Amino acid sequence: MGKNCLVAQSGGPTTAINASLAGILETAMKSDRIDKIYGALNGIQGVLNDTLIPLHEIIGSDHKLLQKLKVTPAMFLGSCRYMLADVERDASDYDRICEIFEKYDIAYFFYIGGNDSMDTVSKLSSYVKKKGLEVAVVGCPKTVDNDLKCTDHTPGYGSAAKYIATSVLEIAHDTAIYDMPTVVIVEIMGRNAGWLTAAAAMARNEYNLAPHLIYMPERAFETERFVCDVKKKLKDHKHVIVAVSEGIKSTEGSYVSAQGTKTDKFGHAILSGTGAVLEEIVKHRIGCKVRSIELNVLQRCAAHISSRTDVEEAFLLGKKTAEFGLLGETGIMTVCRRISDSPYEVAYEKACITDVANFEKKIPDSWIAEDGNDVSEEMLRYIRPLIEGEIQLSYVNGIPDYLTFSHLYK
Amino acid sequence: MGKNCLVAQSGGPTTAINASLAGILETAMKSDRIDKIYGALNGIQGVLNDTLIPLHEIIGSDHKLLQKLKVTPAMFLGSCRYMLADVERDASDYDRICEIFEKYDIAYFFYIGGNDSMDTVSKLSSYVKKKGLEVAVVGCPKTVDNDLKCTDHTPGYGSAAKYIATSVLEIAHDTAIYDMPTVVIVEIMGRNAGWLTAAAAMARNEYNLAPHLIYMPERAFETERFVCDVKKKLKDHKHVIVAVSEGIKSTEGSYVSAQGTKTDKFGHAILSGTGAVLEEIVKHRIGCKVRSIELNVLQRCAAHISSRTDVEEAFLLGKKTAEFGLLGETGIMTVCRRISDSPYEVAYEKACITDVANFEKKIPDSWIAEDGNDVSEEMLRYIRPLIEGEIQLSYVNGIPDYLTFSHLYK
Repeated sequence: MGKNCLVAQSGGPTTAINASLAGILETAMKSDRIDKIYGALNGIQGVLNDTLIPLHEIIGSDHKLLQKLKVTPAMFLGSCRYMLADVERDASDYDRICEIFEKYDIAYFFYIGGNDSMDTVSKLSSYVKKKGLEVAVVGCPKTVDNDLKCTDHTPGYGSAAKYIATSVLEIAHDTAIYDMPTVVIVEIMGRNAGWLTAAAAMARNEYNLAPHLIYMPERAFETERFVCDVKKKLKDHKHVIVAVSEGIKSTEGSYVSAQGTKTDKFGHAILSGTGAVLEEIVKHRIGCKVRSIELNVLQRCAAHISSRTDVEEAFLLGKKTAEFGLLGETGIMTVCRRISDSPYEVAYEKACITDVANFEKKIPDSWIAEDGNDVSEEMLRYIRPLIEGEIQLSYVNGIPDYLTFSHLYK
Repeated sequence: MGKNCLVAQSGGPTTAINASLAGILETAMKSDRIDKIYGALNGIQGVLNDTLIPLHEIIGSDHKLLQKLKVTPAMFLGSCRYMLADVERDASDYDRICEIFEKYDIAYFFYIGGNDSMDTVSKLSSYVKKKGLEVAVVGCPKTVDNDLKCTDHTPGYGSAAKYIATSVLEIAHDTAIYDMPTVVIVEIMGRNAGWLTAAAAMARNEYNLAPHLIYMPERAFETERFVCDVKKKLKDHKHVIVAVSEGIKSTEGSYVSAQGTKTDKFGHAILSGTGAVLEEIVKHRIGCKVRSIELNVLQRCAAHISSRTDVEEAFLLGKKTAEFGLLGETGIMTVCRRISDSPYEVAYEKACITDVANFEKKIPDSWIAEDGNDVSEEMLRYIRPLIEGEIQLSYVNGIPDYLTFSHLYK
């Protein structure tokens, strides 16, 4: 059996995915069953291309570097959006990966990512098993979208939720200054699941009622109802803030976004402009001052306002991922199981990868308000602990001090 | 002579304007020559409408409330965009304001704001003087745009600059993850002056070269040159980040933004979409992956990442504003004069309001790189101290704990 470990990251950025890498690295460095720890650059593509870097050398057990890695946004090792072909159709990628595993004497492969990445873990672990190779293939979850099955929530979600809630509160302060009816539309990420948009509700506190309306893709969006909702809110509030998911669809099933027809290479629709479409509706049908704001990529990379809970959990899930691998577990993903909301407590466990891959977890129907324009108390209870706590970042010359690969390795 | 003081806020939001209010309040509360401190809601309109609130009662010298006020974004007292008519044309507003001054026994009127607000200070102070009223009218500067004359910089600018630099750094991390040529356009506020856009340069550090290109409204924007600049940068860098001001204009003087023809009620052009226009240019002329991001209002209201230098200076300028008023100074604005860059040192002084009002300070020509697509070392030296230091905010339930008027006063 091999003596080395390989880790890679994949999918879209979050501010917690490097914390999972740090967790894997810390546990792997401490194990006397692991010798070298390689990182593949740009996910599974880095394995296929043989672009591996020696993490045991460039970071190793250096506490300061591990701490910096833990709070750095996006992927230290880079990412890819590459899916393995069905093995029956084309096994060449699989054979190439096994060749690399043998070349580097790999006994453990850890893949940190979302839905598409877990598809890779699923396919690869069953191929490796079939070939009789002794390589543990373990997935570690991450996605701001929070749409992975079998886990209470996913690392990255809590920090994005904290950014969204904080930004909506600050936008509410910004909007309230003029003594005139105003509507502000805040467009939030989420193709098919409204978890991120729901997090806007956490902006509410003892004085702030914004967002006054929340529209998630789990419910069909009806323009007439929206106009009616906004008019009603404007009767009681001079300033109305609307949180809307980029992925809302009409009752006919087409994206509200004008750009809803373009697709990325996985066939996922590329969305933008939903907020702008709603802004136009308010302008023409209501006629008051209106502005739309797209939170854009900052909601997934603004590590300066990460949730401490999220980053710590991502780190512990990384450690647990390595521990499962060391126990010889394969074809699994580490998960969080919630034990209680308050005091907040979770257990770190495992799920069979075939139960996870290629499913999208949506918001339960009862967590959305009956009218489809808000969330319920269950949703608030669910999100509340995930955005708790702040990260103490170091700053150099007024900006956060993060870590990159090019810092350390030429 | 009156015994009371009146303060109001005006113009667009910043994260430092409430720090100036807190500074005025603290000094006024300590003075035995001031009895009551009123705040007018929604700027000069609140004076005209007689909507005054007793700040000495609802905040007073409460240290905890003053601290919270100091770090709260946007305007605690609300804002307006109302300019006084020329007195020769219509003196009715002026007479109404003087009536309110007499009704509330006002000896000091402090107005915190930007260019348009300083026009009000200028007109009102000369009217009051002409009428022989003993009311000191003093302006306190604020604007994220940093375009006020006679002061080294304006409160609000440093925090917006810190937000922009931090966001551009985080966007650079987010962009770097995929192994493919990518251009990201970051659209930053600034109608006629490029100060905010220039601040993107502060994102550069020992490993990050983004933004690779910076376009400011002080130089005409040429599409061919832009395409050429981007192509050139793509030769050396896989990921090119471009910072662009919303207000860039073509050599013919028309806004690059597609929405450049709309105007607000002061005749200022309302801009949006410059980033989107550049995105389309890159898509069609270069053809690589491209995205545009509009930082939008968050750059002026994201108090969770305020610059400590900025907030402390805004507070001290508020105190100085009240001190000048107590000395009987009128028709002035408080200013910062820079004594040295490193160690950073400023003096708080005054300027005659007629030298300030209705001018826009642009970036000196020599602070822009020769090719018009970057800033010079002088600009970096100028901005560096302004983004230094962080604010320790309190958080409740995972979001910042700010202060609003409705908290305290029903």
